Amino acid sequence: LKAQIPKKQLNDALNQLERIIPNRSSNVALTQVLVQQAENGLTLSGTNTETDLEIAIAADVESPRAFVVPAQLWAQATKTLPGELVELSIKDSELTLSSGGATFKLQTGEFESYPQLSFPTHSDVLIDAKELSKSLAAVRYAAATEEYRAVFRGVQLELLPNRSRVVATDGFRLAYRDFAASNVTENGQKVVIPARNVDEIVRVLRDGEAKLTIGNGSLSVLTDRARLNVKLMDGELPDYERVIPKSFSVRLKLEVARLRESISRVAVVADKLSNNRVDFIVAGERLQLVAESDSGRAQDVLETTLDGDPGTTIGFRAKQLLEALGPMEGEVTVDLGASGAPAVFRASGDPNYLAIVVSLRI
Amino acid sequence: LKAQIPKKQLNDALNQLERIIPNRSSNVALTQVLVQQAENGLTLSGTNTETDLEIAIAADVESPRAFVVPAQLWAQATKTLPGELVELSIKDSELTLSSGGATFKLQTGEFESYPQLSFPTHSDVLIDAKELSKSLAAVRYAAATEEYRAVFRGVQLELLPNRSRVVATDGFRLAYRDFAASNVTENGQKVVIPARNVDEIVRVLRDGEAKLTIGNGSLSVLTDRARLNVKLMDGELPDYERVIPKSFSVRLKLEVARLRESISRVAVVADKLSNNRVDFIVAGERLQLVAESDSGRAQDVLETTLDGDPGTTIGFRAKQLLEALGPMEGEVTVDLGASGAPAVFRASGDPNYLAIVVSLRI
Repeated sequence: LKAQIPKKQLNDALNQLERIIPNRSSNVALTQVLVQQAENGLTLSGTNTETDLEIAIAADVESPRAFVVPAQLWAQATKTLPGELVELSIKDSELTLSSGGATFKLQTGEFESYPQLSFPTHSDVLIDAKELSKSLAAVRYAAATEEYRAVFRGVQLELLPNRSRVVATDGFRLAYRDFAASNVTENGQKVVIPARNVDEIVRVLRDGEAKLTIGNGSLSVLTDRARLNVKLMDGELPDYERVIPKSFSVRLKLEVARLRESISRVAVVADKLSNNRVDFIVAGERLQLVAESDSGRAQDVLETTLDGDPGTTIGFRAKQLLEALGPMEGEVTVDLGASGAPAVFRASGDPNYLAIVVSLRI
Repeated sequence: LKAQIPKKQLNDALNQLERIIPNRSSNVALTQVLVQQAENGLTLSGTNTETDLEIAIAADVESPRAFVVPAQLWAQATKTLPGELVELSIKDSELTLSSGGATFKLQTGEFESYPQLSFPTHSDVLIDAKELSKSLAAVRYAAATEEYRAVFRGVQLELLPNRSRVVATDGFRLAYRDFAASNVTENGQKVVIPARNVDEIVRVLRDGEAKLTIGNGSLSVLTDRARLNVKLMDGELPDYERVIPKSFSVRLKLEVARLRESISRVAVVADKLSNNRVDFIVAGERLQLVAESDSGRAQDVLETTLDGDPGTTIGFRAKQLLEALGPMEGEVTVDLGASGAPAVFRASGDPNYLAIVVSLRI
């Protein structure tokens, strides 16, 4: 084999593969990158048995030959190469990388022991890659991290004939984002992607179109550049629509950046034992934020427009508020109900995103 | 008390104090900042019993009164304040911070239980603060980190009538940097500063002049802005001058940035079991860098000017080379001797700095 590849592209592909490929494994084959010939160049693939990733790189290839080579070492070597073009060649069992006067010779692995990876050849649903990536990234924080039923530790992908959505919840807060999808089947589909696999999908998605195929316990995402299989969870989220409040006792509108800043500020003295509670005290067209603990008390005041009951006091966990507001821009609409009831957050900057945070009981 | 302080200055002082003041301690008093009146404003001080730091802040102060307040909380609150000017006031046992509409009320601590800090009122030696800071920062890496005699885990400060120097060594490498000092006593003084205390001195030093006083087991550094006491170690470094080679078999001159880059590059495949060995192979006016291990081999070539034996091969630990070259700029002169002998590194960018690395035996 002999091939020339722009260093930036090779670096980029190896960095992404390195995240998935285990650095150490009782199965040494899994620590390697598989290189194969493709239509216009090469594909680089890796797997950790939970996630498979293949990335295509355009290149001129002479005497193509598939091989495997340790992923981490190849990635590190490529990163340090001085030139802009990397020349790959294989002789016997040695891969030579040369670029700008520097040379690496790396021992290749046993090609035969590498697991067979397969990606779907057809795909059903089409989604704008940026929209899908933005949606997954926006709701991922709301998935539970531990000590919850497995299904809460993932993001539910809903491909329904009337609308498509990703949604995550841990039972105390919820986030969803809607987006457009083509070729959704008539009956629709709901699957739950483990949160760590959501991160891999987000990293793979760039421009263009993403093609989704739901297989038997796995989701495949295909783009022009990459093909990804991730494992899915069993089951689906319980009906969450019924916890979304339909009415509110007071609606506030204020600048989301200012609100975030203000929450972070007063949370400095919030009491850890009471979940870093921050209180919203609505007093006419002013929202007062207050937090306190044995060590002190903090207070800040924001201008707001107000619709509804002007004498409300409601507490939240500071961290949950900050995470819910994280993906928002522009002006946020906050719908508050009674103490202990869910509050709803929507922003002018992205009407497809909605966040719910359950308020604390007094 | 009532005072107005620019937020930036207050922030800056609290950040530096926060690094020294323990976040938790069986002696709660130690987790606090002490605030006292000074000539043109306030001083903020803290201690961890190993290091005492006092920082002066210019401010208009009404009805001055000394107090103590939890350091971490005050620092965090100040960081989040929206305005540019912070108003401090004390009522009963509560410190109020107000700025740009936000308010914090923090419980002050027991002033009486705070330890008495004392800083020298006179000082002997005068050194340009930037020079001292640059010198300490340049040699600090060469101090031993563990499993060595205590004295190797510090930086030796030498204030001698003919020259002043900081020097650190772990027995396998050595770094020193010379600088100018005024009012050095006739007999000279050598003291060893523990490495972590060196870091605190570097952080405190800025512009202007540093005044040094060596007391009983402690060093005091005074500047216009700050006063610092740090504990010293017992003893001094063994005579290191005699290990500095006086002759060489080959002298190379090359660009230090290129050399560093090249060492990092080939070190990617270096064998961890042999100390990440990188070989310098001198072949005429070219320096070849080579590293290898079971997983592969890397090679890079640099142009160099050469004086002496053109057929030398010498190995080093990659990390030691990179650390020795770290503080250098411009062109580096490398003096190589026999295998296993020390090599000397000097750079055109800073002739006051010298580094020695013992080469590996073949």
